[in-house]
Formats: sequence, structure tokens, C-alpha cells
Amino acid sequence: MPELRKDPIVGRWVIISTERARRPSDFATEPVRATGGDCPFCSGNEAKTPPEILAGRPPGSGPNQPGWSYRVVSNMFPALRIEGELDPSGEGLFDRMNGVGAHEVVIEAPDHRATLATLSTDALADVLLAFRERLLDLRKDPRFEYALVFKNHGEAAGASLEHPHSQLIATPIIPVMVAEELAGSARYYAMKERCVWCDIVRQERREGRRRIVEANGFVALAPFAPRFPFETWILPVAHGAAYEDSGVDQLRGLAGLLGDFLRRMNRVLGDPPFNFMLHTAPLRETQLDSFHWHLEIIPKLTRVAGFEWGSGFFINSVPPEDAAEALRADAG
Amino acid sequence: MPELRKDPIVGRWVIISTERARRPSDFATEPVRATGGDCPFCSGNEAKTPPEILAGRPPGSGPNQPGWSYRVVSNMFPALRIEGELDPSGEGLFDRMNGVGAHEVVIEAPDHRATLATLSTDALADVLLAFRERLLDLRKDPRFEYALVFKNHGEAAGASLEHPHSQLIATPIIPVMVAEELAGSARYYAMKERCVWCDIVRQERREGRRRIVEANGFVALAPFAPRFPFETWILPVAHGAAYEDSGVDQLRGLAGLLGDFLRRMNRVLGDPPFNFMLHTAPLRETQLDSFHWHLEIIPKLTRVAGFEWGSGFFINSVPPEDAAEALRADAG
Repeated sequence: MPELRKDPIVGRWVIISTERARRPSDFATEPVRATGGDCPFCSGNEAKTPPEILAGRPPGSGPNQPGWSYRVVSNMFPALRIEGELDPSGEGLFDRMNGVGAHEVVIEAPDHRATLATLSTDALADVLLAFRERLLDLRKDPRFEYALVFKNHGEAAGASLEHPHSQLIATPIIPVMVAEELAGSARYYAMKERCVWCDIVRQERREGRRRIVEANGFVALAPFAPRFPFETWILPVAHGAAYEDSGVDQLRGLAGLLGDFLRRMNRVLGDPPFNFMLHTAPLRETQLDSFHWHLEIIPKLTRVAGFEWGSGFFINSVPPEDAAEALRADAG
Repeated sequence: MPELRKDPIVGRWVIISTERARRPSDFATEPVRATGGDCPFCSGNEAKTPPEILAGRPPGSGPNQPGWSYRVVSNMFPALRIEGELDPSGEGLFDRMNGVGAHEVVIEAPDHRATLATLSTDALADVLLAFRERLLDLRKDPRFEYALVFKNHGEAAGASLEHPHSQLIATPIIPVMVAEELAGSARYYAMKERCVWCDIVRQERREGRRRIVEANGFVALAPFAPRFPFETWILPVAHGAAYEDSGVDQLRGLAGLLGDFLRRMNRVLGDPPFNFMLHTAPLRETQLDSFHWHLEIIPKLTRVAGFEWGSGFFINSVPPEDAAEALRADAG
């Protein structure tokens, strides 16, 4: 059973994932990626994954058979386990609980060579709607406080399989990075009675230097204090705390903007590895006036090193105004 | 001039380092490492670095000439600039200040092929004493609140030059990761009137499963909730807030333990790339009863991916008890 452990000084929780345990000698070489033929995510290899939880299928197409446009399955090597109770306990001054949670994979397309940037807008919209469906379903499990949707694209960004996919991990604790955003947003709201994200969107749309592209009620912008070169946030212009409460038309609009942004990024930066992370409201606090859901996209261009790990201070060599200008100027 | 910018939501400061600015096309390929012949840190190439601030030299050896055992110089491409005032200002709802600070390089040995693990204990002690000298000197500059000593060893850990070196960055702000340790330590002290680090050292020495090795008044242990496989902390057993207030004999003792630990790590993990970060007290708060200086060492074995960047939650596949056992058992 994986275990959640809390650092007694800063209060940071980590997941000790025994399911994925490796021996010291296993670290000497980099993990090898599955190649096309053996890929468990390819069409025809449905039996190589756990049974599907959700899929996009034409009428008459049975589960776990070819014919799907996307599939959601449990992760074969989950960081957290769906069964069991948390059973919090202590060990001297330390705190732990069982690693209960959900870990799912969204296989974004049957084609091994597809990417979110090459999918049709409709197919990309279906993936975004699958995220919504899974979030709405996981909300029903009272053990979970948060669900993070994220994507690792390319080996340098942490992907262990090449086939296009994203992931979802539901946790019994609100992750510290989301908790900090919630707390900062609540402080701002207490002071001004306005959503800080709405204020940022307003200022950036007016000012324009960090705005990359805007369409269908969404804006992509380079944040004022980005940790990484070309870090980008995509936000709905209208306030909304929970991604999963977005309407179908709204997410179809997001698909248009996201595809456009990813193609710009690929042209300007040469198909970089990247991560994205969806910051939505906690599963039990979906109506917040102070929080505004958004997607954070980080091309993996640099290495994080000792200064960043020791300080939490990031050194970024590309001013966001320059990044936005390069991405904005590129019309394809 | 580099700029410090603050994220208006979570309050995280970043350094926008225009000195190191690169154009988008520069990211397509990885930076190239200097090889032996051209290395600016090699003996004989002293003119390729800024003038030395401090060096280990035999009597009669003049500055910026061969003959040194270690050298401290300003970073040729500093993330922060030593000249100027902070000039904090706003831009709408955003906050910025000038990127004033110090960025120094400690060239640890004249030999390009040396590493901290192969240096003699005396030579390693001289490097640790050089850190102390620089910290004591930077304390005198009232613009600086903190100085972080860190090391990037190996390309995957962020080193851009192969020659053995560590770095020091002094900042006008206490970095968030140190601030979190200070706040957590102060909360614990307020509750118990004891240093949390002293309590951890006591519990781990008694319990033993996460203790790796102990000598000369220092202990190396695998923390209870490590972010990374084989993450290790080295702490003085006796309370002390500021590294730079350590005595010469104490740091000579640390050199013995640190060299032993690095050689164990290299044998068990096959000479991995690694980072270390020295967490000492802030420059203006060196007498804290609640804070305990320590060295954090992180072998670079895995990739940080979307889940970690989006949540702040780390997934670690090696329980610290297993890591400690592997490192403890290896006697060389």
C-alpha cells in the first residue's frame, strides 16, 4: 500500500509509492520507452490496460475493443490505490496515512503518433470533456478532496510512454500548490472583494504585452512572474472556480484556443517536451468567488537545479513580455 | 539589470535574469559543456574568470595565478547584480524590484577531473571553510537577507560546466523554501519550546532505520518524508542555527562525514548527478533557538513531471528506510 507522509517542519506531504518501488541498481539507467508495436495504449491492445472507465465510441462499439477515439483507464502502476481507508497514524513526531486515491490515464487518441496539437478541434474537445466527466464522477467519492489533471509530453517532461495521454490523480488532501493559490486568492478577495485572477485577466487584456492569444472566451497569457521560460496560463475570461462546471460549448471553445496555442508553441520552440496542469477548485469547494480555474503549460526547456530546489526561487532567462511577443507574432 | 518579480497570487518571487537572456531558437538544442582544454576554471586559465575574491594559496603565491587549491570568483553570468539599490515598484497589481544580489562560484579544485568525493578530507574541509568565509563576508552587506550555497554536479543536475564547483547566491529576500522551514520550526518551538530539528535528530538516532552514517558530531539521515529517492540531510547533532558560526574543527569534522557519504552514494547509485543545498539561518537572524542548519543532498535519479509541478506533492518510489539501509550497508 502506498503511504502519504508529512514533513514535520514545512508540512509538505509526499507519496511513498511502494507500487512503483525500484531497487538502487535500477536507477543507473534511464527507463526505456515502449515503442509503437508493444504500446499498451494503441488501438488493438485494449487488453493490455485495465478495463476502461470511460471512452469515446460510436454507437454499437463495445467496451475494451478497437473503435474508440479516446479511453480513460486506471493507471497500471498507480501512485495511489483506490481501495481502503486513510487510517492516519503517528510515528513519534511524524505523521502518515494510507495512500488512498485514484490514478487514471486518459488515452487521448488511438494513433500512437498523434499529439494534442495535431488532433482535430473536435477530438481535442472530447478529451477536455472527458476530463470534465472524470472530475464530476470523482467528486462523488467523499474520501477525495482534490483531483489534478496533468500531462507529461516527451521523455524530458517525465513521460514514460510515448503514446499521447494525460493523467488524473485524486488525493485525500488538497495539494500544497493549490492550497497556496487558494489562500492567496482568498487574502486578495478579503481585501478587495474581487477575484485576483479576474483582475489579472482584466489588466493583461488591457495592457497587452503579456497576452499571447484570445478566443472563444479564453485568454492565453505569459504570467508576470513565470518560473519557467515560456510558461503560459490559459484562463476563462469570465469567472468560474471549477473546470468541471464548464458547459460543453465552453470546453469546445477552449479546445480551439488550446490547439492554437500548442501549435504556436511547437513552431516557436521546435516541438518541445511540455507539462500541463489543470488547477480547478477543490472537489468540495466548487463555488468560490475568489478562485478562478486555469491551465498552466510549461515547456520543458531548462533544468531545475540546486538554487531552485534549495530556495524555491526560480531563475528565468526569458522575460514573459518577450515570450508572449514571440508566441503572439507567430501566425502559423 | 535582472529583475525580481512577485507572483500576486502565491507571493512567490522569481528572478528574471536578462543577463542570461536567450532567444527562442536558443532552446532548441541543449547547452554545450566546456571541455577540459578551454575550461575557465582550470589552473592556468585564471584570466578567464573575474578576479578572485578568496583562494587557498601557499605563502608567496599571488592572486589570479596558478598554485591555488580552491578559488572563489564572481559568476561571469550572474543571475543577480551586485551593484545598485532595490528600487521596489509596482505595475498595476504586480510588484517588482531590481535584481540586486551576489552570485559567486567556488572552484573546488584545480584539477578538472576532481570531485568532492575524491578530494582529500583536508581539501574538502577548505572548501567548507570557504563557504563559511563568504557567508561571514556577505553578512556585512545590509542589502542581503539570505545567502544560499548550492552545488549542481553533472549535466542532469543543472551543471553547465564540468569542472568541480559550487555556487553562492545572496538575495535581498529570504527565499520561500527557507521561509517555510523557518515558519514551521518557529511554530513547533512555540508549541514545545524545543527545536524540531533537534527532536528529529534525537528520534532518528534512537530509532535508527533512517540513519545512514554518523561521525564527528554530524549525522546523515534519510528524511521521513523525502521528495526524492535517496534524498539525504546532514545535520550537526548539537543545535546551531548558522553554518557560518561553526568552528574550524567542526567543519573539518563535517568534511569527513560528507566525503564518506558522497563516496557511499557514488558506489550505491553509480556516480549519479546530484544537487546539494545548504540551509543556514538568514543573515540577520543567526541566533535562532528554533532553526538548525543542515545540508540537503539530492541525487538526480528521476524526472520531476506535471503532477509535482501542479501539486507540490512529490511521488517517491524509494521508502527512506530502504535508501538508508542501502547507503548504511555499503562500507566501501
